Amino acid sequence: MIFLKKAILPKGFKANGITCGLKKSGKPDLGLIYSQFPAKASAKFTTNSIPAAPVIVSKKHLKTGKLFQAIIANSGNANAFTGKQGVRDAENTAALVAAQLGIKKQSVLVNSTGIIGKKLNTAKIKLAITLLVKGLSDNGMPKMSKAIMTTDTFAKEFTAKFKSGKSLVTICGIAKGAGMIAPNMATMLVFIATDANITQRALNKALSRAVEPSFNCITVDGCMSTNDSVELLANGASLNLLIDKGKGFNDFSEALNKICLELAKAVVRDGEGATKFITIKVKNAKTEYEAKYLALAIANSNLFKTAVFGENPNFGRIVSAVGASGVGVRQQDIKIKASSLKKKEITVEVSVNRGKSSAVVYTSDLTYKYVKINAEYN
Amino acid sequence: MIFLKKAILPKGFKANGITCGLKKSGKPDLGLIYSQFPAKASAKFTTNSIPAAPVIVSKKHLKTGKLFQAIIANSGNANAFTGKQGVRDAENTAALVAAQLGIKKQSVLVNSTGIIGKKLNTAKIKLAITLLVKGLSDNGMPKMSKAIMTTDTFAKEFTAKFKSGKSLVTICGIAKGAGMIAPNMATMLVFIATDANITQRALNKALSRAVEPSFNCITVDGCMSTNDSVELLANGASLNLLIDKGKGFNDFSEALNKICLELAKAVVRDGEGATKFITIKVKNAKTEYEAKYLALAIANSNLFKTAVFGENPNFGRIVSAVGASGVGVRQQDIKIKASSLKKKEITVEVSVNRGKSSAVVYTSDLTYKYVKINAEYN
Repeated sequence: MIFLKKAILPKGFKANGITCGLKKSGKPDLGLIYSQFPAKASAKFTTNSIPAAPVIVSKKHLKTGKLFQAIIANSGNANAFTGKQGVRDAENTAALVAAQLGIKKQSVLVNSTGIIGKKLNTAKIKLAITLLVKGLSDNGMPKMSKAIMTTDTFAKEFTAKFKSGKSLVTICGIAKGAGMIAPNMATMLVFIATDANITQRALNKALSRAVEPSFNCITVDGCMSTNDSVELLANGASLNLLIDKGKGFNDFSEALNKICLELAKAVVRDGEGATKFITIKVKNAKTEYEAKYLALAIANSNLFKTAVFGENPNFGRIVSAVGASGVGVRQQDIKIKASSLKKKEITVEVSVNRGKSSAVVYTSDLTYKYVKINAEYN
Repeated sequence: MIFLKKAILPKGFKANGITCGLKKSGKPDLGLIYSQFPAKASAKFTTNSIPAAPVIVSKKHLKTGKLFQAIIANSGNANAFTGKQGVRDAENTAALVAAQLGIKKQSVLVNSTGIIGKKLNTAKIKLAITLLVKGLSDNGMPKMSKAIMTTDTFAKEFTAKFKSGKSLVTICGIAKGAGMIAPNMATMLVFIATDANITQRALNKALSRAVEPSFNCITVDGCMSTNDSVELLANGASLNLLIDKGKGFNDFSEALNKICLELAKAVVRDGEGATKFITIKVKNAKTEYEAKYLALAIANSNLFKTAVFGENPNFGRIVSAVGASGVGVRQQDIKIKASSLKKKEITVEVSVNRGKSSAVVYTSDLTYKYVKINAEYN
C-alpha cells in the first residue's frame, strides 16, 4: 500500500470548493464531490437524537438503496435544530446540485457544519451552484477539504493506493473536525471516495470495521454533535475484479482502516486549542467495551486534560477518573505508565487487572485556547 | 427559622484550625470539630470505587454504630491512592486526636483533601495535635473552615436556628469545594454540627433528603473525587424533645435542607475559575432521574460552559447536549428559555415534552482560570 498525506481523487471523481457567503470571513464554505459514474455508498451518522436536517435527508436518500453521484457540504451553518424548514432547505440544496449536474436529487448526500439553530441561507447556495459545478476538477479535492473547515487549523487529507489484481485502487479521505468531537462521531464530516469495484455488503462491512477504532475512539471535548457523518462512495472506476471476501476484501479493508485512523488522529491533533496529542491505552479490562469506557473516562476528564496541558504529572486525576467511572476498579489493581508530559505526543497506559481486553482512544489537552475559541465562537 | 451566612457552633461543640505544614503555602491545613457530648453521626461518601484512605477509615468507624465526638480534617494532601499505608496513616491520625481528646479512636471521623497519590506526612500532624486541641473554642468553626480550603477563594459557612418545642436548635454547616465537583459528591468536604436531640433514623432520613437536591445536583467540572464526604454530628445539647417524626422532623429537615442547598450553591459559586452561577432546570421529563440526567448533560458540556463564559447565546450547544444524552428527546419537543448571559447568575430552562417531572442542577462556567488553576495545581 502507498499512503500519502494529501488528497488525490480516485478515477472518475471530481471535486471543488468555493465561497458562497455563508461564512462571514469570506473563506470557502461550499464544496462538492462528484462521481462521473453512479457509485455505491456506505455511511455512518451521529447517534444524537436531534440530528441536523442534512443528516435526516442523507439518511432518507440512503434508504432508497440506489446509487449516488454527489456529496455536497457547506460550512458556516450546521442547519441543525431548524425544524421542518431545515429539512426543506437540505432537500433544496440536494435538488439544486442535482439539477446542475443532471442527476436525481436522491443520488446526492447533503452535509452542513457550523452554528446550530440558524436557518440556512439557500439563496446563497443557489447563486453559487453553477460556479461550484463548473469548477469541478480531478484535482479539486483540496478545495473541497478547505470548504468544510470551521475552526480547523489544517486540512485533513489522506490517500491510499493498493493493487487489487491488476488494477490500482485508490481511496481518498478528507475530514473536518476541531470541536464537538466525541465518540460516536462528532461535528466531524468525513468524505471518502474510492474507485474500488466492491459489493455493497463488503463496502458496509469495511466501513463499520474502520470507524470503530478510529472515529469512535476519539474525543476532544466529550461533546457529540448533531451533524457528524462519515460518507464513503465507491464508483468501481478502477475496474478491479469485484471485491467481496478474502484477500481482495482484506486489502481494501486495511487501506480504509488506515485512511480512517489517520483522519481520526488528525482530527484530534487539530482539536480546538490542542497542544498535545494523547494516546490512552487501557489494558487488562474485562471486555473491549469496558476498556474503551475506562479510556474515555480518562480522556474526557477535564482535570486530566488540564494536567496534561500544564505538563503536570498529576496521576491522581487518572485514578480519580477511573474510580469515578462506575466500573468498580479497585485501588490495588490499577497500574499507570505514562511517557513524559513535556513531549507533544503523550502515551498513557493504564492496566486494571480485570481481564484480557484492551482499547486505545485518542484525545487532546484542555487549554486556554479551547476556552477562548468556544467562548467567542458564534 | 433564622438563617445566617456565618458559622456559629451549636451548643456543646468546639472547633479549631491551624497550620501544621502540609501545605507549602503555610496556610491553615489542619482542623478539628469536637463535641463535648457523644453525638449521633450520619454521613454520605463518594461513590468512587477508589475511595481515599480517610473515607475507608471513617466508613469503618461508622459501621460500629457507636457515638462520635470528633471530625478531623487536613488539606494539602488527599491521602488517596496511597494503599495500605494510607489507611494506616488515616487510622493513626484518628488515634492521635483521640488520645489528645481522651476519647476512643473509633469515635473520630477522618478527612483529607488535596493532592492524590502522595503519602500523608503524619509526623507533621502528630507535632501539631496538642496545639490543635488546646485551641478548641466555641467560636472556632471559621478556623476549621479555613483549614480545609484548597483552591477555594472564600469560606462556605451557614447556620440555621429554629425552635423545637421550647428549645432553640442550631445547625451549622461548612464546606470546602472548588474543583473535582460532580454529582454524587466531589472533592467536597462538608461538616455539619447540630445540637438537636434526634433519633438515628430521623437523622439519616433528613441527611438523605438534604443531599439529593443539593450536593448531588451540582457539578463544576464533571469530575467525581476520591474524598468527598458529608458528615453530620448531632449531640442533643439543645435538650429539645427527641425528634423523630411529624413537625419536629419537618422543621429539622427543612433547616438541614437549607444548610445543604446553600452550601452546595456556594461550592458552585466558588467553582474553580467560575465567573457565572448557572441554574439549569429541566421540565416535563418522564422521571426525576431523567430530568436530572438531562440537566447534568447540559451542565457538563464544555461547549455550553464556555459559551456561558463568553456570554455567547449559542443555544445550539444545549440542543446538542440534550440530543447527545441518549435520552431520545426529539427536536420538536425541546423548548429553551434562558436569562441574559450578561448577568452573573444565569437560569436556563429546558422543557422536553415527555412527562411531568423536573429537576434543577447548579453549575459554573468553564474559563481560562479553570484551565490555569488545573494546569498548574500540584
